[in-house]
Amino acid sequence: VELSGERFRVVYHLRGTPAEARERALELCNEQTVEFPGDLLGRFDPAVATEVVGRLEALAPLDPGRHAATVSFATETVGGPDLPQLLNVLFGNTSLKPGVRVEQIELSDGMLSTLHGPRLGRQGLRELLGVQGRPLLCSALKPMGLSAAELAQIAGRLALGGIDLIKDDHGLANQPFCPFDERVQRCAAAVAEANARTGGHTLYFPNVTAPADRLVERARRARELGAGGLLVAPALVGPDSVRRLADDDLIGLPIMAHPALLGSYLVAPDQGLSCRVLLGQLMRLAGADAVIFPHHGGRFSFTPQDCREIAEGATCAMGPLRPLLPVPAGGINLARVPELCAFYGDEVILLIGGDLHRGPDLVASCRAFREKVERR
Amino acid sequence: VELSGERFRVVYHLRGTPAEARERALELCNEQTVEFPGDLLGRFDPAVATEVVGRLEALAPLDPGRHAATVSFATETVGGPDLPQLLNVLFGNTSLKPGVRVEQIELSDGMLSTLHGPRLGRQGLRELLGVQGRPLLCSALKPMGLSAAELAQIAGRLALGGIDLIKDDHGLANQPFCPFDERVQRCAAAVAEANARTGGHTLYFPNVTAPADRLVERARRARELGAGGLLVAPALVGPDSVRRLADDDLIGLPIMAHPALLGSYLVAPDQGLSCRVLLGQLMRLAGADAVIFPHHGGRFSFTPQDCREIAEGATCAMGPLRPLLPVPAGGINLARVPELCAFYGDEVILLIGGDLHRGPDLVASCRAFREKVERR
Repeated sequence: VELSGERFRVVYHLRGTPAEARERALELCNEQTVEFPGDLLGRFDPAVATEVVGRLEALAPLDPGRHAATVSFATETVGGPDLPQLLNVLFGNTSLKPGVRVEQIELSDGMLSTLHGPRLGRQGLRELLGVQGRPLLCSALKPMGLSAAELAQIAGRLALGGIDLIKDDHGLANQPFCPFDERVQRCAAAVAEANARTGGHTLYFPNVTAPADRLVERARRARELGAGGLLVAPALVGPDSVRRLADDDLIGLPIMAHPALLGSYLVAPDQGLSCRVLLGQLMRLAGADAVIFPHHGGRFSFTPQDCREIAEGATCAMGPLRPLLPVPAGGINLARVPELCAFYGDEVILLIGGDLHRGPDLVASCRAFREKVERR
Repeated sequence: VELSGERFRVVYHLRGTPAEARERALELCNEQTVEFPGDLLGRFDPAVATEVVGRLEALAPLDPGRHAATVSFATETVGGPDLPQLLNVLFGNTSLKPGVRVEQIELSDGMLSTLHGPRLGRQGLRELLGVQGRPLLCSALKPMGLSAAELAQIAGRLALGGIDLIKDDHGLANQPFCPFDERVQRCAAAVAEANARTGGHTLYFPNVTAPADRLVERARRARELGAGGLLVAPALVGPDSVRRLADDDLIGLPIMAHPALLGSYLVAPDQGLSCRVLLGQLMRLAGADAVIFPHHGGRFSFTPQDCREIAEGATCAMGPLRPLLPVPAGGINLARVPELCAFYGDEVILLIGGDLHRGPDLVASCRAFREKVERR
C-alpha cells in the first residue's frame, strides 16, 4: 500500500497505570484502523503494520492514573474530505471502551484544505449583523405549544428590543400546531418588520433539524421565506449533514449548531470527547458559525474549564478554517451578563431564553439585556 | 393548542434520593419539551403546561439511589414521522445532564404506523439467504490497507467456506488504496463466483457510510455493483439517514448497522441510553435489519445484561415493526461459538473477524465455524 507519509495527530486521555495506558494506547492504534490481530499483520504488506496502523508518538503522565497519548494516523485512513470517516478513525470503535477521551486533534494541512469549515465564521456573521466590538445578543422562540402567530409576535418583540439573533427553540420542528413553513414565514416577517422600524439587522434562525430527506429542502425553503440563518442539531441529523448545509451555495446562510443529544459524549469526565474537540474543533469542521452549549452554573453540569475549552476550540489554529462564535446558554439570566462578558470577552453570543420573559414587558427585558452588554 | 391526547412513554433511570429523583424527573418533563420557566407557563394556553410539557406518570425506586421515572409525551411534540425530533424529545437536552439514562421506550400505535422499520427484518433476511433454523455466520473484510483485489480474494474464500454474510470492515470507506467502486465490484464478483461454485447464497454488505451528499448515491451504486446488503454506521451518518436508506425502493437491500461512535451513549452505567433502547429499539426505528455490537467478554466492556437487552430490544413488541437480528462481535473467537449459540439461541448472526485468519487456511477456518454452528 502506497502512502504519502502525511499524518494527522490526536491526543487521547487514558485511564490506568503507565503500563495499562501504554497497552490501551497501542490497542487503540490497531482498533481505530486495521482492527486485526497484531500478531497476524506480518502476512500482509509491511506498510499495513508500520503505516496504516495508528502510531503512538508520545505517552505522558497527567494526574495519577491518567495519561495523555499522542497518536498519529495516515491521512489516507480517512481518504479525502470525509467527515464521517474522520470521526470513525478518531473514536469509532474506541467510543465503546470506557476510560478513553479524545482531548485534542491536529489535522494535517492537506486535510484542512479539503474542508471548508464555517461559511461566514465570526467575522462574517458580525458583518451581516453590522455589529462589531461587543458580545452579540441571542434569544430563543419558545415555548413549544405556541402557534406560529404567537411565536412571530414574540420574535417581533425580541427584535424590537435589540436582540441580534433570534433562533427557534430546538424543539420546534414541524409540529401540527406550528408547521415549519408557516412559522418561518411569520417569524421572518415579524423580524423584518421590526428591523424596518428600528433600522436594526436582527437575523432569524429557524430550526431546520429534520428527517434526512427533508433537511436540505427545509434549509433552502427557510432562506426563501426570509430566514437569516439556520439552527441545526448535529447529533440529530449527523454532523456531516451540517457540513452539507454549510457547503450549499443555494443556502448560503450562517449556521448555529445546537448540542441536543451530544451530551453523552461530554458528561463523563474521563471518556467521550473533550468540549474543545466536540463543540469547538469538530463543529468548525462541520461548518458551524456558532455553537450553543450550557454555560457553567446554569441548569447543566458544564465546568468553567469546559467552557474555556470551547472558546479555545472555536478559535484555535486550524489552517484556513474560520473561527466560530461560542454561544453560552442553558438557563443563564440577566444578572449573570457581566460575569459572562468577563469570562468570554467580546467574541461571544450570549443566549438568554426563558429569563427574558420574567419581567412584565419582553421588549424592556431585551433592552435591559442590551444595556448590560453595552455597559459591560 | 389542540392535541389528540395520544401519548408515548419513556422510562428513565435517575440517580439521586427519592426527592431528587422526583425533582429531576419533573425538570426533564419541562426540559424535553417547552424548556421554559415552569412558573411562567401560566401566561399561555393552559394546555401548554398540562399537555405539551411531559407528564410524570410514575416514579418507582430501583436500587438505593436510583429510580425509574415513567414520563409520557404528547405524540404532537414529535409531530409526524420525524426520527430526529423523536430523539430530541427522548433525550436531546437531557443528554447534557449526568445521571439520567433512557431505559425503555413505548411509542404510540399512531407513531409506529408512520415508521416502516426494517425493510426485511430477520425473516426476510433469512429468506434471502435461504437459511432457517440456525444462527447465521458473518465475517468482515479486513484489514484496512489491503487493495480491492486482495479483499476480494478474502471475500471469495469466506464465501467458499460457507459464511452467510460478508461485510466490509467499517473502516473501509473510499480510501485511495481501496476505492469504493472498485472494492464493491470486485468483492461482489468474488462472492458471486463462490456462490456459483457452492450453490450457496452468501451476501456481501459493503460499507456505505459516507459524506452526507454521497450516502444515497453510494448505496444505490452498491446495489448496481452486486452488493447483497449494506453496512452503515448510524452515529456517523445520523440515524435518520439509515432510515432514509431503508425506505428507498431503489436500494431495497437489507441493512446492517455498526455501532461506531455510539459507545459514549452506552459505556457509563447510569447515563446515556440503555442497550435495549439504542441498539434494539432505535435501530429498528432506523430500519436496520441487523445490528452489530460487542459481545461481553471480548475486547470491549459490554456485560451479559447489555447483550440480553439488545436481543430483547431486537424483538420486543413494536407495532408492525419487524424484529432485527443481533450481531454479537468484537473479538470473539471460534472457541466461543457454543457459548454464543447457547446465549442467543438461533435468532442471531455470529460475527467472527480476525480470528478466522488465525489458522493456516481461511476456507478451513470458515468451515470449522460453520460446523460448530451446525453442531451447536
